Amino acid sequence: MRIVLIGAGNLATRLGIELLQKGEEIIQIYSRTKDSAKELADKIGTNFTTQLSEIDETADLYIFSVKDDALPTVLGQMKPNNGLWVHTAGSVPISIFESYTDKFGAFYPLQTFSKKREVNFSLIPIYIESHSAKQLAHLKTLAHSISETVIEASSEQRKQIHLAAVFACNFTNRMYAIAAQLLEEKGLDFTQLLPLIDETASKVHELHPKDAQTGPAIRFDEKIINKHIDSLKDGELKLLYYSLSENIYNEHKRVN
Amino acid sequence: MRIVLIGAGNLATRLGIELLQKGEEIIQIYSRTKDSAKELADKIGTNFTTQLSEIDETADLYIFSVKDDALPTVLGQMKPNNGLWVHTAGSVPISIFESYTDKFGAFYPLQTFSKKREVNFSLIPIYIESHSAKQLAHLKTLAHSISETVIEASSEQRKQIHLAAVFACNFTNRMYAIAAQLLEEKGLDFTQLLPLIDETASKVHELHPKDAQTGPAIRFDEKIINKHIDSLKDGELKLLYYSLSENIYNEHKRVN
Repeated sequence: MRIVLIGAGNLATRLGIELLQKGEEIIQIYSRTKDSAKELADKIGTNFTTQLSEIDETADLYIFSVKDDALPTVLGQMKPNNGLWVHTAGSVPISIFESYTDKFGAFYPLQTFSKKREVNFSLIPIYIESHSAKQLAHLKTLAHSISETVIEASSEQRKQIHLAAVFACNFTNRMYAIAAQLLEEKGLDFTQLLPLIDETASKVHELHPKDAQTGPAIRFDEKIINKHIDSLKDGELKLLYYSLSENIYNEHKRVN
Repeated sequence: MRIVLIGAGNLATRLGIELLQKGEEIIQIYSRTKDSAKELADKIGTNFTTQLSEIDETADLYIFSVKDDALPTVLGQMKPNNGLWVHTAGSVPISIFESYTDKFGAFYPLQTFSKKREVNFSLIPIYIESHSAKQLAHLKTLAHSISETVIEASSEQRKQIHLAAVFACNFTNRMYAIAAQLLEEKGLDFTQLLPLIDETASKVHELHPKDAQTGPAIRFDEKIINKHIDSLKDGELKLLYYSLSENIYNEHKRVN
């Protein structure tokens, strides 16, 4: 397939490199920022533009990986063409394309991407959607060329997947950051937590997380909970500790 | 060393098996519950008792791995002996031993343990403490026989490590459980999140978690944040989503 990438951020970078390695032809990169556009174009060995009006109109596939808020503006400035238009956003319905083209869909790889960090795409679930069976089949073939897990999901389901990912990734990372801060306050090093962090993640490969829950909150060990809350100096952290413990305990009561 | 294990829970089980494999002699298991005591004694091939008055008085080391709340009662019923007494609790100061014996300390492996799940002790940090240099040296030798990472830490530091571990492990697992629930509500499977969970954990081996933060909250993408909060049905989850996002955003403002 001849592909244009619209966007040159974390996801566009990793996806572009992966598609190239799988033999797809990335004919052009667009980014509003010249540095980003050039950086990715150089990595992939292709052309770039910073003007939406200069986007190549002959591609088979246009992948929009821009910020959700920017997508309507970008779409409004695209010239019509005959390619398939997809976005890679969790929380944007495919109906956003309706007024601009009749060949559209979504191609959402569920992962946290950084420009510089390689990831194994074969393990990443890719959620695809299109209003047209023919376009969906094209997306399925493309997705299967890079991943073993390709799932058809509606815009509604994709939004929920994104929401779940915010908990499983973004909020989880915040838990790591708070833990790091607490250790560093006492002259201890965050890296000492890595075996615990790894085991916590590994455990849920075997046990459902609701069966893997441990700690003072699920035992309702009020003595430790109060000691911990007392020793937190930051009011926001006190409140988070309390709300999370209460949530764990309430969930435990609901189930048992 | 000749060792008595007081307690037969998750930590006592994994630690007992590990010490046996490293050539230590576990001469007796105590647990209040006969089934637990027998189960672990059978695994280790040793004797057990459910009576504190029957604990063997000839051991070199007594490892107390009982619930924090139970420890004072257990200590109160122990007959005096010449062994070294240590507990494995994060949030209990070693001064708890003072009125019962003059050879005491702490031996705290930082990990989440399950009876049935093997863990690689060589990677687990073990925090040791004693009021006596001689006892500390004994604990250091023992800890080094099972782990590459042995750290002297005060009771105050150990409490903070435990607090950090609650965030990095217990609260993180709750994030996984909420994510699972959100997916299952829409007919999707939790296992689809495993590559994301693994990558989130792997990333902080290379990047400090405060530099690894991604997602709507750190971008202050109010549109998605509001969409997500709207789509959560459970009031507790709405509040958690809001508090965690606010905490990520406030931290970002403090730093930048």
